Amino acid sequence: MAVKSLRIAVCLRQIFQVRTLRKQFISTSASLTKSWGSKKSLRGQKLWKTFQESSVFSDGDMGDTNVDEVLAPLRAAVKEQGDLVRKLKEEKADVNEVKKAVVVLKARKKALEDKELALAPKDDFDRIKMEDTLKRRFFYDQSFAIYGGVSGLYDFGPVGCALKANFINMWRNHFIIEEGMLEVDCTMLTPASVFKASGHIERFADFMVKDLKTGECFRADHLLKAHLEKLIQDKKTTADQRSEYTTVLSLLETYGKEKLGEYFKTYGLKSPITNNELSAPMDFNLMFNTSIGPTGNVPGYLRPETAQGIFVNFKRLLEFNQGRLPFAAAQIGNAFRNEISPRSGLIRVREFTMCEIEHFIDPDNKDHPKFSLVADVKVLIFSAQDQVSGKSPSLMSLGDAVEKGIIASRVTGYFLGRIYLFMTRVGVDPSKLRFRQHMDNEMAHYAQDCWDAECKTSYGWVECVGCADRSCYDLNCHSKATKVQLVAEKKLPEPKIIDVVEVIPQKGLVGKAFKKEAKLVMDHLASLTEDQVVEMEKAMQEKSESEIQVNGKSFTLKPDMVTVKRYQKTVHVEEIRPSVIEPSFGVGRILYTILEHNFKVREGDEQRTYFTLPAIIAPYKCSVLPLSSNKDFDPLVQSLSKALSDANISHKVDSSSGSIGRRYARTDEIAIPFGITVDFDSLKEPHTATLRERDSLKQIRAQVDELPIIVSDLSNGKILWSDVLKRYPSFEGQESTAGQ
Amino acid sequence: MAVKSLRIAVCLRQIFQVRTLRKQFISTSASLTKSWGSKKSLRGQKLWKTFQESSVFSDGDMGDTNVDEVLAPLRAAVKEQGDLVRKLKEEKADVNEVKKAVVVLKARKKALEDKELALAPKDDFDRIKMEDTLKRRFFYDQSFAIYGGVSGLYDFGPVGCALKANFINMWRNHFIIEEGMLEVDCTMLTPASVFKASGHIERFADFMVKDLKTGECFRADHLLKAHLEKLIQDKKTTADQRSEYTTVLSLLETYGKEKLGEYFKTYGLKSPITNNELSAPMDFNLMFNTSIGPTGNVPGYLRPETAQGIFVNFKRLLEFNQGRLPFAAAQIGNAFRNEISPRSGLIRVREFTMCEIEHFIDPDNKDHPKFSLVADVKVLIFSAQDQVSGKSPSLMSLGDAVEKGIIASRVTGYFLGRIYLFMTRVGVDPSKLRFRQHMDNEMAHYAQDCWDAECKTSYGWVECVGCADRSCYDLNCHSKATKVQLVAEKKLPEPKIIDVVEVIPQKGLVGKAFKKEAKLVMDHLASLTEDQVVEMEKAMQEKSESEIQVNGKSFTLKPDMVTVKRYQKTVHVEEIRPSVIEPSFGVGRILYTILEHNFKVREGDEQRTYFTLPAIIAPYKCSVLPLSSNKDFDPLVQSLSKALSDANISHKVDSSSGSIGRRYARTDEIAIPFGITVDFDSLKEPHTATLRERDSLKQIRAQVDELPIIVSDLSNGKILWSDVLKRYPSFEGQESTAGQ
Repeated sequence: MAVKSLRIAVCLRQIFQVRTLRKQFISTSASLTKSWGSKKSLRGQKLWKTFQESSVFSDGDMGDTNVDEVLAPLRAAVKEQGDLVRKLKEEKADVNEVKKAVVVLKARKKALEDKELALAPKDDFDRIKMEDTLKRRFFYDQSFAIYGGVSGLYDFGPVGCALKANFINMWRNHFIIEEGMLEVDCTMLTPASVFKASGHIERFADFMVKDLKTGECFRADHLLKAHLEKLIQDKKTTADQRSEYTTVLSLLETYGKEKLGEYFKTYGLKSPITNNELSAPMDFNLMFNTSIGPTGNVPGYLRPETAQGIFVNFKRLLEFNQGRLPFAAAQIGNAFRNEISPRSGLIRVREFTMCEIEHFIDPDNKDHPKFSLVADVKVLIFSAQDQVSGKSPSLMSLGDAVEKGIIASRVTGYFLGRIYLFMTRVGVDPSKLRFRQHMDNEMAHYAQDCWDAECKTSYGWVECVGCADRSCYDLNCHSKATKVQLVAEKKLPEPKIIDVVEVIPQKGLVGKAFKKEAKLVMDHLASLTEDQVVEMEKAMQEKSESEIQVNGKSFTLKPDMVTVKRYQKTVHVEEIRPSVIEPSFGVGRILYTILEHNFKVREGDEQRTYFTLPAIIAPYKCSVLPLSSNKDFDPLVQSLSKALSDANISHKVDSSSGSIGRRYARTDEIAIPFGITVDFDSLKEPHTATLRERDSLKQIRAQVDELPIIVSDLSNGKILWSDVLKRYPSFEGQESTAGQ
Repeated sequence: MAVKSLRIAVCLRQIFQVRTLRKQFISTSASLTKSWGSKKSLRGQKLWKTFQESSVFSDGDMGDTNVDEVLAPLRAAVKEQGDLVRKLKEEKADVNEVKKAVVVLKARKKALEDKELALAPKDDFDRIKMEDTLKRRFFYDQSFAIYGGVSGLYDFGPVGCALKANFINMWRNHFIIEEGMLEVDCTMLTPASVFKASGHIERFADFMVKDLKTGECFRADHLLKAHLEKLIQDKKTTADQRSEYTTVLSLLETYGKEKLGEYFKTYGLKSPITNNELSAPMDFNLMFNTSIGPTGNVPGYLRPETAQGIFVNFKRLLEFNQGRLPFAAAQIGNAFRNEISPRSGLIRVREFTMCEIEHFIDPDNKDHPKFSLVADVKVLIFSAQDQVSGKSPSLMSLGDAVEKGIIASRVTGYFLGRIYLFMTRVGVDPSKLRFRQHMDNEMAHYAQDCWDAECKTSYGWVECVGCADRSCYDLNCHSKATKVQLVAEKKLPEPKIIDVVEVIPQKGLVGKAFKKEAKLVMDHLASLTEDQVVEMEKAMQEKSESEIQVNGKSFTLKPDMVTVKRYQKTVHVEEIRPSVIEPSFGVGRILYTILEHNFKVREGDEQRTYFTLPAIIAPYKCSVLPLSSNKDFDPLVQSLSKALSDANISHKVDSSSGSIGRRYARTDEIAIPFGITVDFDSLKEPHTATLRERDSLKQIRAQVDELPIIVSDLSNGKILWSDVLKRYPSFEGQESTAGQ
C-alpha cells in the first residue's frame, strides 16, 4: 500500500528534520470521485470555470448519504483521537504519551481512508489499456530495453518528449516570465560538502535488507508490510494474531532500523524470492555518488532535488535583484534518487525532472501584492484540522482559507492559487486535485506551513506539487557550513541608535606575540559577539589575561593587546534572514496524471482510445492527411506542411495508406487536437481543406491559407473551437467515415 | 597551445576508433580576421545577407599580400609533405612510413597555423572586460563558489539561463519542428553494458600523471607541453636542444602513455606545483561512474554524450516512423565528462548541454529532398585537401562543394547548410564561422565524411558543432552486443527470387539425443549461414556425422537428425543497416561564442559595454523604465508590465533610482534589445511611451497599447527595427541623456 511511503517521509522530516521531496502518495477519500464522475465531458478552461461555479459542494455535502453513514463511526473515531492528541498537547503531557496518541490517531485515519477507498465507485479508467497505448505509440518506455532495461529509468519518445517540452514551456511562462522570477540552471553534479550541510548525506536514506546469499536488496518496510498483509489474509491466522499483525502494521512508519530488525526476527522474514536469510536492516542513502575530478578526493553526488543550487546562489541572486526582497528564483532540471525498489511507472523513478521555486521573503511580512488575483479561486482544501477530525476535503476560496487561518499566509495562498491555475490549465482534472495540508507531526520542525497538491490517479492520491514555508532553514544550513552570511538588508522604518561593544586588537603586540598565527587571532577577535567581548573584558580585569580557543588551539591574550571600545551607532537597515516559500513540481508525476485524466475510449468502440489533452500542451498541434494516396494531393500537403512549420506549429503528415478514419484514430491516440484533411474539393481554387477537432469530432472547411493561423490561435488558446464552428461552414463528408 | 587537444582526439578516433565529442579547438588562420574586421557593424540576418553577397572572396583571394608572402614558404612546405603522403598511400607504402610522413605533415601544418595566428592583426575584443560583465551581471559563474567552487562546473544565472532557454527553443524550432524530427529524452544514468558496447569504457580516456605525495593529478600531455615550451623560451637552451624540443612538441599528439612516460623521465618532469615526483602516465576514463540500485551490482555511468540514447531506441523510433527511412531523431540534454584539468571557461567543462541529431538513411541513397533550399548558401569551407595543401579556407556555395565532391553527399551538405543558417541566426558572426573537414587520418575508420563547424574566438578556432557521416558503426555496436537486429527494411525496386538453403532438424531425434540441451542445438541450427549448412551437409555425407560447437560444448549430429532443404523464395524487401549523419551541438561553447561575437563597447565610453545579441535570442526582450521615481508613473508601468507578461514577453522593470541613461546602460549590459520609457508625456491621453533600440540607440514614440505587439513582432523577427522607424515618429528627448 502506498500510504506507507508517505509516512516514511513524514518520519524522515519529523525525526531528522531534513528536506525531502515528497516522493509519496496516499490513498484516501476515493468517494470524492463519485459525485464528480458526471463532469467528465468538461475540459480545460471550460472545465475549470464550471468547477469554480459548481454548487455541488457549496453546502459542504461531499457525497452519498449511505456512504456517509458507513463512514460516520470511523470519522468519529478519528475525531475522538484527534481531540485527545490536542488535549494532551495543551496539557503539555509527557512527549512519549503524545507520540503514542499520535500513532493511534494515524492508525484510525488510515482505517477511515481505506474504508473510503473501498466504498468508492470504481472508475472506468483502464490502466492496462492506457499503458498499452503509451508504449505502442512511444510516449515513454523503459530505458535501455534492448540491454534488458534498468528499473526506475524511462525514456520519453517523440510524443512524450513534445508533451514534456510543452509542459516546461508553459511552466516557464506561467511562473518565471509572468512572475518575473530569476531562473537559474545549476549543475547536477554537486560536491559532498553541500549535501553535508543540507543534511542529505546523513539522513536522506531508506532502510534496506540484503539477501545474504544473492546480495539482492529490498526495502525493509516493504517486505515487512507484504509479509504481515499475507499473514492477515491467511485463514489459519487466529483473531489474536490478526489483531497483533494489524497493530504492528499500523505503526510501521514509526519504526527505526532496530525495531524493524526485531520484527524481522520475530516473524522470521526471509527473501521473498530465494527464501534465503536476510541481513539486518541498514541505512541506504538514496543519492547517487561519484567522484569529481581525477584524484578521487572530491566526493560528489547527483543532486536529489534542484533547490540547493538556488540556495548556494542566494547572494548572487539577491544582488541581481539589487538587494531587494521579496524575489523568487526558479530552476527546471533533473534530479536523481537511487530508489531501492522503484515501481509505479513514472510515479517513482531514479531520474526525473523537477521545477522548483524558492520565493525569498521578509519573515515579518508574508503578504503577496497579487493575492487578490487568486482570492476568489476555489480549490479543494484538505486541512490538517479536517484530517484529524475525520472530515473530508472542502471546496473553499483561497481568500476564505487565508482569512480563516487555515492557510498560514497570503504568500502561501497566492502560490497555491497559481499552482491550481497551472495544473488545471495543463489538463489536470480539477475534481481530482486537492490541496492537503501537512499535519503538525508531518512537518519538519522548521517548516511553518506545508501543503501538497495531490492528484487522484489509479495509484491513489499522488503528491504532484509540494508547497512549503520552510522559514530560513536552508539558508541557515549553508551559512553555518560556509561562514558566508546569507542575509538581506531591510530598511528600518526609522533610523535606530544602537550600542556597540567592540574589541580593537593592538596589531603590533598581537603580531609579536603570535607571529604566523596573529591573523587567526585577529579574525577570531573580529568575530566575537558582544557577550563574548564583555566576558573577555571581565577575564582581563580579574585575571589580567584571557584565553581564547581558535581552531582547537589556545592563545593567551594580555590586557595591553586589546582595547574594548564602546560607542553608539545610528543604523538605517537591519540584517534579516529571509524565509523561503518553496513550490516544488515533479514533472513526470504531473505528466502521468495528465495522461490518466485525459485518457478516453470512444463510445461504442473499445478499440479507439484517445487523449483529450488541451491543445496548448498537446504533443503535436495538428495532423495533415491527404484523403488518399492520390499524387495530386502532394503539392498541397507539402505547402501546408511548410506553412505550418514556418508558423512553428508542430504537426504530423500521415500520407500512409489506410482509410481516413483509421488515420484519424491514429492521430487521436497521440492526442493531436486538430486534423487537416486535403480532399478532392481542396484541389479546386481557392484551395480549401477540412479541419477536424479531436474531442467533438466536428469538422469545418476553410481556405488552406487561413488554416495555419486558425490552428495556431486554437493551440495558443487565443480562440476556442466554438468560435471556429461559428465562423466557418461545418463539414460532414469525412465524418461519416471516421468510424472506419 | 590548443592544437594539441584536438590531436589527442584525432588520435583517439584514429587509433581507437571510438566516438568522442570534439572537445577541442584549434588555432589557425587568424589572418582571416583581418579582411573581415571592417564588417563589424553588420548584424543578424542583415549580416548574413551581406556576407552571402560579399564578393571579397569571390576571386579566392583571402587576405593581405605581405602576409601571403610570409606564409608562402610555409604553405609550400605543407603542400610538399601533403603530396608525399598522398604518393606514399597511392604506392601502398609501408604503414609506418606513411605514419611518419603524416606526423611531419601535421608538424608543418601546425607551423603554418601558428604563423598565421601570429601575423593576424589583434582583435579589439577584451576578454577580461567581458568576463567581468558576465560575472557581475550573473550570466554564469562558477558553481558552489561559497563552498570554494568546483572547477569545470558553472551555474547559469537569470540572464544566461534565459539566453540558454531561448537558444534551445530556437534549436527545437529550427531542427526538430521544421524538419519533423523525432525528439527523445533519455536518461543520463546509463548502465555500463551500453558504454562497453560503444567502446567508451575501454577508450574514452586521457593520460594522467599523479603527484606521488599529494595525489594531485595533471594531464600528462599538458605538463610535457608546458615544460618543453618553457625550455624552448629559456635563453640558456642551445639551438640543438631547441630543435629537439620543438620536434618532440610537434609530435606530442602521437605519443602513447609509454612514450609519454619516457619523455617524462628524459626531461625529469616534476609536479609544477610541489616539485614532487610524478607517477608514470596512466589511462584515466573521462566518464563519471556510479552504481545504479542498492546492490552495487549494476555499474553505471553518466553519459558523456546524448547520442547513445537515440541508438538504443532505434527500433522504437523506426516503428514510430512506420518503418520508413530516412528519419532523424534528436535529443537535447546534459552530458558529463570528468576532465582532468578543465579550463577555458565554458569551452571545457565537466557538465554541459548538448543537442544531437541522428539522421538515419539508406547508405545507397545519401540524397536530401530539401538540398536545393541550401545549395546557394555560401559558407567558408576548409577542406581536407586545402589543409594538406597549405591553403586557406574558401567561401563556396554548398551546391558547388557537393558538386566538386568536397562534401561527400547532399545529405551532409544539407545539414551543413542548416547548421550555418542556425548559427548565424542565433548571433554567430558568419565571418568567424568556418566548416573544417576532418582529414583522412583524423576520422575513425568507419566515418565517411566529417566536418566541424568552428567559431573563431579569443581561445582560437573552437569546434562548436560536429557533423559526421558515421556509416552504420553505432547501430552495429549495439546489435552485436544485444543480438537485437537494428536494421530497416527496404523495398526492392522489383521482387527478387533467391535460393534458400536451410537445415530442418528432426525435433524428436534431436530431443532424444540431447535432452535438456536440445533447444540449444536447435537454436544453433537455425542460426547457421548457407555456407555452414553446406559444410555440415558435406561432413554428414563424408563422415556420416557432423560435430557442432555451441557455447564451448561439442554435439555430434547424425544424418537422420537433420534434413537440408533447398528452395527458391520471392522477396520484396531487403534488410539494410542505416547509415547515420550526426550533427552534434555543444550548447555552452556556442553560447560563449555568441557572447564573444556580440560583446561591444560604446564608442567614446570604455565603461559602457553591451551585447548586440539578436532580439530573438536575447535573454529579456524588453525593459520598462519610468523616467523617474515619480509615483504617477507606477500605474502605467504596472499595466505595461502585465500586458507584456500576458504576451509572454520576458522583460525587466527597473524603477530604481539613477538617471535614465544609467539605467539604459544597465539594460544594454544584459543585452536587452528594446527599452520602453514611461515619461511625463506618457501620462497624457492617449498614453504613449518611447521605445529605444539597443544597437542604434534610436527611439520612437508609440501608443502604450501598441507597444507589446511591436516588441513581440520585433522579438520574433516578424518586423525589423527599420520598419518601426518608418512607421512611428522618432523621439530625441531622452537620447540626449543616454550618455549620463
